[in-house]
Amino acid sequence: MALNAIRSLAQRRARVGSPAVDQPPRLGEADRLEVPAQPVVQDRLKSDVLPYFPRLIVQGAVILLADCTDVRKKAGPGLRESFMKKIVTAGEILVEIMATQVGQTFLTPGPLIGPFPSGAPAIFIDQAGRLGQPAGIISSVGADDFGVLNIRRLEASGVDVSAIAVHEGAATGSAFVRYNRDGGRNFVFNIRDSACGLIELDAAARSLLASADHFHVMGSSLFSERVIAVVKAGIDAVKARGGTVSFDPNIRREILSAPGMREALNFVLERADVFLPSGDELFLFTKARSEAEAAAEILARGVRAAVVKKGAAGAVCYDASGAVHSPAFAVEEVDPTGAGDCFGAAFVSFWLRGDETERALRLANACGALAVTKKGPMAGTASLAEAEAFLESRT
Amino acid sequence: MALNAIRSLAQRRARVGSPAVDQPPRLGEADRLEVPAQPVVQDRLKSDVLPYFPRLIVQGAVILLADCTDVRKKAGPGLRESFMKKIVTAGEILVEIMATQVGQTFLTPGPLIGPFPSGAPAIFIDQAGRLGQPAGIISSVGADDFGVLNIRRLEASGVDVSAIAVHEGAATGSAFVRYNRDGGRNFVFNIRDSACGLIELDAAARSLLASADHFHVMGSSLFSERVIAVVKAGIDAVKARGGTVSFDPNIRREILSAPGMREALNFVLERADVFLPSGDELFLFTKARSEAEAAAEILARGVRAAVVKKGAAGAVCYDASGAVHSPAFAVEEVDPTGAGDCFGAAFVSFWLRGDETERALRLANACGALAVTKKGPMAGTASLAEAEAFLESRT
Repeated sequence: MALNAIRSLAQRRARVGSPAVDQPPRLGEADRLEVPAQPVVQDRLKSDVLPYFPRLIVQGAVILLADCTDVRKKAGPGLRESFMKKIVTAGEILVEIMATQVGQTFLTPGPLIGPFPSGAPAIFIDQAGRLGQPAGIISSVGADDFGVLNIRRLEASGVDVSAIAVHEGAATGSAFVRYNRDGGRNFVFNIRDSACGLIELDAAARSLLASADHFHVMGSSLFSERVIAVVKAGIDAVKARGGTVSFDPNIRREILSAPGMREALNFVLERADVFLPSGDELFLFTKARSEAEAAAEILARGVRAAVVKKGAAGAVCYDASGAVHSPAFAVEEVDPTGAGDCFGAAFVSFWLRGDETERALRLANACGALAVTKKGPMAGTASLAEAEAFLESRT
Repeated sequence: MALNAIRSLAQRRARVGSPAVDQPPRLGEADRLEVPAQPVVQDRLKSDVLPYFPRLIVQGAVILLADCTDVRKKAGPGLRESFMKKIVTAGEILVEIMATQVGQTFLTPGPLIGPFPSGAPAIFIDQAGRLGQPAGIISSVGADDFGVLNIRRLEASGVDVSAIAVHEGAATGSAFVRYNRDGGRNFVFNIRDSACGLIELDAAARSLLASADHFHVMGSSLFSERVIAVVKAGIDAVKARGGTVSFDPNIRREILSAPGMREALNFVLERADVFLPSGDELFLFTKARSEAEAAAEILARGVRAAVVKKGAAGAVCYDASGAVHSPAFAVEEVDPTGAGDCFGAAFVSFWLRGDETERALRLANACGALAVTKKGPMAGTASLAEAEAFLESRT
């Protein structure tokens, strides 16, 4: 009990103290913790907690987490994983190259900016890592600068990159994006025949899965039989030990016709605990045509939380206790790419931490909003401190 | 005889009158031509030449090519090919994306410019087409904007694009280039696993080869067994009907170890009439270590012209009659990519037209120089008028 409380306090501090935030967290009432004087608790404190938190101040029966800005570095994966559930995902890592002017085409040379680290599951896991959640990804890149760029970025966000294979002779996947005057986007992708096409369940991937509490599936990643096999193995591994699964259909028209795609989507949905469709994607899996009825249908299939993402209109979470709506935040949009992935990662992270739906949704909306304010799919992924500061500025 | 003279005059005019040059050519003494009054000559003039040259002025025994700015459009491929030898090549079509700042890396997002049409054999054939030479390429692109960009560009330069296959689901090849402070360049390529990897000898490729008088080989294109097979078929087809072959080793370190590469390079050299090594590439195929001895060794193997490209130091052509050196032109370098390809295409075009080595080298150096003055691998390919105007400005 006391250890759970320490764990929760450390969690809170770990979030605040993400490596990207340099200022020491302020101490509040919540940072004080009564510790029972029983020897067994004191012993576990000394053996399991204090070695990792050198500045943890124990004053009699009260401990203060006085300075945990470097908790994550100091604590090491072992302690972090004992405190928080680890999210693992599998799928495409890409570089993204963007046209800089609205209305620009790719039929003539023009100004571009890039390469940005990207790929829907990579953005998702980067956001989870930035929020302090233990996180890892099974993926594959080429032995080129674009692979290095992505691995460095994910590593800096605290993501476990041990299962990102580097393939000599393969090219890191890429996405070129341009912006139409009507607000739409157009892409030129190189995914299936890039290093992404070589994603497989190798020893490193199995080892990462062995540490996972939760598996996240991006529909966009189901682009080949090979990745589908990895995703199914990931779901099975996590489910076998009582873990949970989240699923963002994130359906790219280009791959809806891929072999095994439809069957794979249903396989994932049958096993999903959290379902994160964007707008009409909800109806891809239901007979019902009204949102509430469709959500009820999804919940009846075993999903515990169905969160409908509606962009600027916010999000609604349907679960056993009803529906909670949470409005989006109006921000100046610089680059919408990745906002839905950031929303999803934040919701899943706080859902895994046992936070209330309302708080999880608000933080997810904050992360989604912050994501669109920066150019680059991962440039706007926020730490908890940043997300909370944003929420504070809006209340 | 008279027809040959008309042909040569029309050739000269066709070059001047490339579609990219809008001002009507000036008439000089060389544009006047005595035509024998024999009925057979007059008949062939009427049937084979006049229909295609509506503004050809026949004054008694003198014809004037008064206005041929649109000769190529009007003449159509039939006549052009009866006048000039057709060059065909096979290999990679790419888009090129460039870092805009010297010293920029690909490990962080930065300003880029592109996509530019590119690929060594594509640049070569674009330059040949721009010089008015009948030209075609066997290649393959994805069904994306990058493929369209390249096909449009080559088409606009007069290149036969009928054997460029468009593959649904494959990505057009790409090359990202960045410039080091020491003057060197670094690339991130996606070639082998792009649409380029699907180049094959399909019906369109066979049909293009059936119209070829000359086949050009870029060493960079020998990146897979599949393309090597196409290149061998091209050489065999052209040689079987008495045509000629040119070979630019253009060796990219990344592919020297590709399966069958070494054997393929030797296969091509054994059949080459024109050999276009850059600097030390000459010695890759010889025992001799001095340039003159190495060139003699190459000529002894059946090569008719060995042209050593030396960048800013100009070029030397070795053939049966000795060595001709031609200095390069000092220009302000904006982008070196493609200069060697443009040099080669110009040399081969004028060699095929039977021009003197000195003139062919000078025009090739002019095309190489003009190529580096524009950003983009094909942006600087010059028409004959542009190359001649440049030469005039330098004398």
